Amino acid sequence: MKTTQYEKIADRILKLIESGTLKNGDRLPSVRSLSQELNVSVNTVKDAYWMLENQNYIYAVPQSGFFVKDNPDFKCITKKIDPSELDPRIMNFCQVYGAFQDGENFTPEINLGISNLNHELWPLQRFNKFINDALKYNELESYSYLMSPGFYELRKQIARISLSSGMDITPEDVVITNGCHEAVFLALMTVCSAGDTIVLESPLYFSALELIDRLGLKVIELPTGEDGINIDTLTFVFENHPVRALFLISNFNNPSGFTMPDDNKRKLVKLIKKYNITLIEDDIYGDLYFDKRPSVCRAYDNGENVILCSSFSKTTFPGLRVGWIVPGKYYSEVNKLKTLMNISTPSINQIAMARFLKEGGYDRHLRKIRTVVQKQVMDMRTTILECFPEGTAVTEPAGGNILWVELPGNYDTFRLYELAVREGILIAPGCLFSLKSSYHNCFRICAGIWNERVKNAVIRLGVLAGGLGS
Amino acid sequence: MKTTQYEKIADRILKLIESGTLKNGDRLPSVRSLSQELNVSVNTVKDAYWMLENQNYIYAVPQSGFFVKDNPDFKCITKKIDPSELDPRIMNFCQVYGAFQDGENFTPEINLGISNLNHELWPLQRFNKFINDALKYNELESYSYLMSPGFYELRKQIARISLSSGMDITPEDVVITNGCHEAVFLALMTVCSAGDTIVLESPLYFSALELIDRLGLKVIELPTGEDGINIDTLTFVFENHPVRALFLISNFNNPSGFTMPDDNKRKLVKLIKKYNITLIEDDIYGDLYFDKRPSVCRAYDNGENVILCSSFSKTTFPGLRVGWIVPGKYYSEVNKLKTLMNISTPSINQIAMARFLKEGGYDRHLRKIRTVVQKQVMDMRTTILECFPEGTAVTEPAGGNILWVELPGNYDTFRLYELAVREGILIAPGCLFSLKSSYHNCFRICAGIWNERVKNAVIRLGVLAGGLGS
Repeated sequence: MKTTQYEKIADRILKLIESGTLKNGDRLPSVRSLSQELNVSVNTVKDAYWMLENQNYIYAVPQSGFFVKDNPDFKCITKKIDPSELDPRIMNFCQVYGAFQDGENFTPEINLGISNLNHELWPLQRFNKFINDALKYNELESYSYLMSPGFYELRKQIARISLSSGMDITPEDVVITNGCHEAVFLALMTVCSAGDTIVLESPLYFSALELIDRLGLKVIELPTGEDGINIDTLTFVFENHPVRALFLISNFNNPSGFTMPDDNKRKLVKLIKKYNITLIEDDIYGDLYFDKRPSVCRAYDNGENVILCSSFSKTTFPGLRVGWIVPGKYYSEVNKLKTLMNISTPSINQIAMARFLKEGGYDRHLRKIRTVVQKQVMDMRTTILECFPEGTAVTEPAGGNILWVELPGNYDTFRLYELAVREGILIAPGCLFSLKSSYHNCFRICAGIWNERVKNAVIRLGVLAGGLGS
Repeated sequence: MKTTQYEKIADRILKLIESGTLKNGDRLPSVRSLSQELNVSVNTVKDAYWMLENQNYIYAVPQSGFFVKDNPDFKCITKKIDPSELDPRIMNFCQVYGAFQDGENFTPEINLGISNLNHELWPLQRFNKFINDALKYNELESYSYLMSPGFYELRKQIARISLSSGMDITPEDVVITNGCHEAVFLALMTVCSAGDTIVLESPLYFSALELIDRLGLKVIELPTGEDGINIDTLTFVFENHPVRALFLISNFNNPSGFTMPDDNKRKLVKLIKKYNITLIEDDIYGDLYFDKRPSVCRAYDNGENVILCSSFSKTTFPGLRVGWIVPGKYYSEVNKLKTLMNISTPSINQIAMARFLKEGGYDRHLRKIRTVVQKQVMDMRTTILECFPEGTAVTEPAGGNILWVELPGNYDTFRLYELAVREGILIAPGCLFSLKSSYHNCFRICAGIWNERVKNAVIRLGVLAGGLGS
């Protein structure tokens, strides 16, 4: 049976209603505008609308057009995976990662799975002012391209704060990125090609593993000790494998919390120079030190062998997406790739952050939150040690907001994760932190937020863990 | 001769002054804070500052600290390339592109080389309000991650406006990106691997060529005719080459201005389905039609073979970096890659744009500017035809803000570009629009802005071109 043109149009609109794109009470396009948009006669559109009206999907309001009726059955499509259907023992990394990501779609009441700064510690009011100042004093700049490498004043401020980590860099050494993850992405795509071998610390945060996996790199995972990656082991690996690059978080490692002593950093840079290997250094937690700012490996390099990546996402607002990369000798390559990837980081975000830094707000903010974050981390640590099964070990980082918890070997933290998700609590199970199926008895928990509710959640986690003992 | 610790510190600060990171009048970190940052005694820092003071690099202001003195010799490092040193006849694409990009560093007085909407047409005041509303009504969301696929209301609004191009999509079909370029980047990385063959229209805008070149794809460039890419030629190519993907701008092509008739779009989709080839469709200019909104190829596809990429950069603000991709069957792959690339598009940018769209501001804005842009394009076109050498041809697009100018074969537009840059006028020479050294007698000019100054610049370009005749 041939369908007429107005039936086709009615059917298309119906699809939009069924899909939830047009919802109860939404006004439909005016007859005239839709007839112009679809290049059909006004009457054809009218016929379509009348048909839908007769079918009771929409209703007309005199003088103001057609509106969508309430259709309780219609809902938006949203895929859901029940993590409990997945068994880590027969799963590969991507499946676990997928389950974890879908887990986020549950929007858990208490999210301790993602590493963020407690929003109660964000300098909201103050930063709103800087956004308004940007719109007021840099209005055209705020809406125009600020081509990569990015806003000069922001790069200047980043060069300034880099002094505290031992780096002497100029604004011309910095490229602004959309957060640290983009910086790491740019570094990996510039230095490595599919099939190249990269050395990683283990455990390592999952989105870095997933990215490296996606880029088709061969991976050597080296267990991290109290002092970070072991120089002797590393020497052995460099001696026996065609390693192209090394990725590591030298300060307040995610998840292990370990910090590499400055002396090891110096040794490490010597080593990679000898074997001509590029270190991609992630320092995103560096400014969140409790006692003293540790240096970065880049401080002992001239830009020949170390690429530094960082951002403001862990110290201020993750949603602003302002980070940076110090690519050294790869500068022009990285800058061009950034341009080809998304031309530039949004302008207003760069300008507002630059004003925040220049006015000294960033430094004041950090001085204010450091002791708070340290207390949160330590309180959570104590609570875990009190209420988790005997034999549970917890890291004691000197900065950052992450704890790595190791239960006795017979505990399965993916199971704990499954049970916790059902109760609205999200943690990151250990199997997410290695491409091999390791760390089944560990998990990462974020102390970015700490209050009564979170404390009770942690206590509840301890109870759930206890139940897994047998 | 061993240097003391305070000399080291003084030397590091001096580097920052010499590099211009610390400029005339800048206040140095307080003695106390720097001593904490560097973990040295207060006296060591004092010695360093006094040494620099004696050397006349900085001066002390009682009660308020040390400041940088004016050092006229010191300036920031800024690389400059004189395009006139480059000869297109012995240059590859990347060199020309590099020269063009460095040309931008000259910040020409009259930039007709980049395609932008005249900022006088930007809805600035109105959009400032939406940013403030976002900060007021979505304050926490504005600063938190809005994880990919992005802000739901924005995806819903994009699904709504897509109706006019013949697409019936739901918010669940859309992934928000940092502009259209990132959308294309995601599509290419998802569909193609290095070594794959991709078919391109020719001429094609340079940053797409550069990106495809960077990803190591084999390229087949097909000349575009009045009706866009030729279906028969395309069939022949598909029949005889292992083509993985096709990239094209079906509406108001950049630079050719051509629009593919809807009927050809339908045929094209049939064709790529037959050969199971993925079309990456760039529709960034689609909403900037003068008379009637052309459909997109995606309107004739079910998401199996077409990936649509677009953004608000050409219709509103380029600096906001809000675009989107409709990946069809590649949805989850694209969404994951976007997450791995930079986690998400900045939140405040997404929310403000969603509010702008929902309130109807975007549609009103477009209705307002379409006739203005059309007049600008036509006025520039007339001026070029009046004052350029005889035999010059200019495209007559039905939308967008770009003109493609073809001079007689003996003219060299790279030379014209060189001469124009010296006079502060930037155009895009033809050799940028093909990986082969074609279009030496063509150039692209943007009519995004049109006033007396621009008109005089175009007349001046005509004079310069005339001088190249012999």
